[in-house]
Amino acid sequence: MQFKITNELLEEVHAVIETANDEQVFAFFNEYHHADIADILEELSLEQATYVIKLLDSEKTSDVLIELDEDDRERILKNLSAKEIAEEIEELDTDDAADMIAELPEERQENVIAQIEDEEHAAEIKELLAYDEDTAGGLMAKELVKVNENWTVTQCVKEMREQAAEVTRVHSIYVVDDNNILKGRLSLKDLLVAPARGKIKDIYIPKVDYVYVDEDDEEVAKVMQKYDLEAIPVVDQEKHLLGRITIDDIVDVIKIEAEKDYQLAAGITQEVEADDSIFELTKARLPWLVLGLFGGLGSVFIMGGYEEALSTYKELFFFTPLIAAMAGNVGVQSSAIIVQGLANDVVKGSLLQRLLKEVGLSLINGIALGGLVIIFGYIMQYPASFTFTIAISMLCVIIIAALVGTFVPIILDKRGIDPAIATGPFITTSNDIFGIFLFFYIAKLMLGF
Amino acid sequence: MQFKITNELLEEVHAVIETANDEQVFAFFNEYHHADIADILEELSLEQATYVIKLLDSEKTSDVLIELDEDDRERILKNLSAKEIAEEIEELDTDDAADMIAELPEERQENVIAQIEDEEHAAEIKELLAYDEDTAGGLMAKELVKVNENWTVTQCVKEMREQAAEVTRVHSIYVVDDNNILKGRLSLKDLLVAPARGKIKDIYIPKVDYVYVDEDDEEVAKVMQKYDLEAIPVVDQEKHLLGRITIDDIVDVIKIEAEKDYQLAAGITQEVEADDSIFELTKARLPWLVLGLFGGLGSVFIMGGYEEALSTYKELFFFTPLIAAMAGNVGVQSSAIIVQGLANDVVKGSLLQRLLKEVGLSLINGIALGGLVIIFGYIMQYPASFTFTIAISMLCVIIIAALVGTFVPIILDKRGIDPAIATGPFITTSNDIFGIFLFFYIAKLMLGF
Repeated sequence: MQFKITNELLEEVHAVIETANDEQVFAFFNEYHHADIADILEELSLEQATYVIKLLDSEKTSDVLIELDEDDRERILKNLSAKEIAEEIEELDTDDAADMIAELPEERQENVIAQIEDEEHAAEIKELLAYDEDTAGGLMAKELVKVNENWTVTQCVKEMREQAAEVTRVHSIYVVDDNNILKGRLSLKDLLVAPARGKIKDIYIPKVDYVYVDEDDEEVAKVMQKYDLEAIPVVDQEKHLLGRITIDDIVDVIKIEAEKDYQLAAGITQEVEADDSIFELTKARLPWLVLGLFGGLGSVFIMGGYEEALSTYKELFFFTPLIAAMAGNVGVQSSAIIVQGLANDVVKGSLLQRLLKEVGLSLINGIALGGLVIIFGYIMQYPASFTFTIAISMLCVIIIAALVGTFVPIILDKRGIDPAIATGPFITTSNDIFGIFLFFYIAKLMLGF
Repeated sequence: MQFKITNELLEEVHAVIETANDEQVFAFFNEYHHADIADILEELSLEQATYVIKLLDSEKTSDVLIELDEDDRERILKNLSAKEIAEEIEELDTDDAADMIAELPEERQENVIAQIEDEEHAAEIKELLAYDEDTAGGLMAKELVKVNENWTVTQCVKEMREQAAEVTRVHSIYVVDDNNILKGRLSLKDLLVAPARGKIKDIYIPKVDYVYVDEDDEEVAKVMQKYDLEAIPVVDQEKHLLGRITIDDIVDVIKIEAEKDYQLAAGITQEVEADDSIFELTKARLPWLVLGLFGGLGSVFIMGGYEEALSTYKELFFFTPLIAAMAGNVGVQSSAIIVQGLANDVVKGSLLQRLLKEVGLSLINGIALGGLVIIFGYIMQYPASFTFTIAISMLCVIIIAALVGTFVPIILDKRGIDPAIATGPFITTSNDIFGIFLFFYIAKLMLGF
């Protein structure tokens, strides 16, 4: 049943478009779901995609545009007039409309908004554009079903019918007072069994989850996930009802946040995809590589300082990639666990407890790995003092690397900085330098060169 | 408005529990949302938590149990009798019930199921237990609203009322034929405006998304996300309607998959949390560290083989951590982009195109980084031939590392293996060895030692 882009399908698409028979092209595309059309358009040339967008009804194409990749959407919108974009915007819910407008160049934004015929829609979009995109305000839509607590049941049903026509999916009915302050929610069932002249005041449920308009989007995601909500109302500080957020937007937030953290851990600074241009990819990757290079050059310096050991303990230098790798791997493991723990609010207990735990953990890992090094040294017939020096300094490096990996994210988080930046290359690079320095320092103390 | 565990709250909780006054404790906890009670219980001793669970109604505690961390749930369930667990199970939807039973030791599973009074519920749970937990079958619930296409509208409304009582949220009404084959869905609106004697057959929408029962859970997540679905029906190969999956379960799938990939990239083999035991954490972390250790010992061997270069080009050895770091970082970046691209189906085009792109990208990065190395060499007054050797061999290492990082996940994916395992330590370790070998090999060719 699942839609898949196949070569046959693409050939068919190209053949249909080449007929340039508007009716035939329309009939062909109209059969598909808007999300599938978006997938198809991403495989077409800009010219072809624009042709299809202009041909189909804006009821359908507005949804197609929202589904497209940001880059592809940008290119197509460039080919549309302000009037044409405004027509697409009219068909969208306010949240999607605001997102689409926000991507346009600034002077175009005003032109497009000026062309929107529905003045209320335009005003609502303008309001949404003012909110930071990473907040509840940036996620919410103005479309919702709300009723006044002073209405009778009959009045309420009548009003609801009108409002519901504008809302794609009615998740909840929100109850407000005369000042638009959120009071509670209404269950459809209670509404249906209540006497027609009864007041909403007497039947609504005063317990309702809500979020403030300036709440961080990740926090909203946590609340909706925790309480299994499919929609949540958004209010300002005085509890005026401003909008609502639905679960499908939250799914996107969760995905995007997870991908961002993953990329940061892999040393990629901005959201990129495998199919972005080489230039975009370089911009995202090169900074971390330069950081890694500086770390490596730092190691060159450190080793240069212990040059005199080369004559007696040359093998010490052969172990530096191993030490760097251990320091890096342990640091990345520790930081990943802490970053995830912080994100999920499971990092509990005092810092001292955490410190003891990390030291304990590193001791177990370090002793196990040290044992393997000792076996290796025995096989290689290194002098016992040399093998033990390697094993013990590696153990120390592992402990320090674990502590750095654990506490740098915690400190960043306490200072309000996203701890996710302290994973991946950041931790490996600093641990490489720390590790190699510590390794030689301990080796010098133990072997006395 | 948001619930937060504070020290004051915990003191209050402890004070209430210490009264051992059942009524007071009941009244205190009954005020809270089940998800919040779960948060509180995770802060209590096992004894206290069990006391609260036994005290509250199973209507509430069943939801609390589902919200608990798996470890905490397991400990509490150990303290309950098969009968008590069965009572909790009766209150749960079949999907949650099956998940909870699946966690029990095998002989307990049968005891608990035998104690479930509602035989239909028990049979449905047994059916769900048979599906693999990573498939649509493992995610779905049996609770849904379905109507027969041959029913009249009146009949349909009557049946629906009964069914809806058992379903927490009615997302869709599914239409089946006499053989329980999924035919389509019904819109509540169409049902309400249809004549009472009309047949469902004449008003239902035949276009309905569905997934097969053996479909991978990540695929289900993709479909529901792509089409913005809040629920999807699950069918077998003959399209018999078996159950339905709701979006809240999909949110969990997305989160868990993202966390798994993130942990794999960080070198952690199984799902662990910051608050797991040292033993659990060691089990998850040590295997990758051992792999890294073997990689490091491999480098020791390789360098040992080039020992004769020490007398003339000792600085070559100082650069090994830098080379290893570059190879590792580049490999991790490439693999992360490919792994995400594969997950999101955006890796398009031929392998040759991808190869050319990676080589192009590596050339740009490598030349930029090589430039920095040349500046460094100039400052350090290395001989020009030596500096160029480092820069050029580093460039080659970067290209190879990018290719390994790109193609190992692609090859794994083609063979049906999760490409996410080829990120993090796997790639860094293999690239460390490859990189150092290549570095010395090229240096030997260029410098001729």
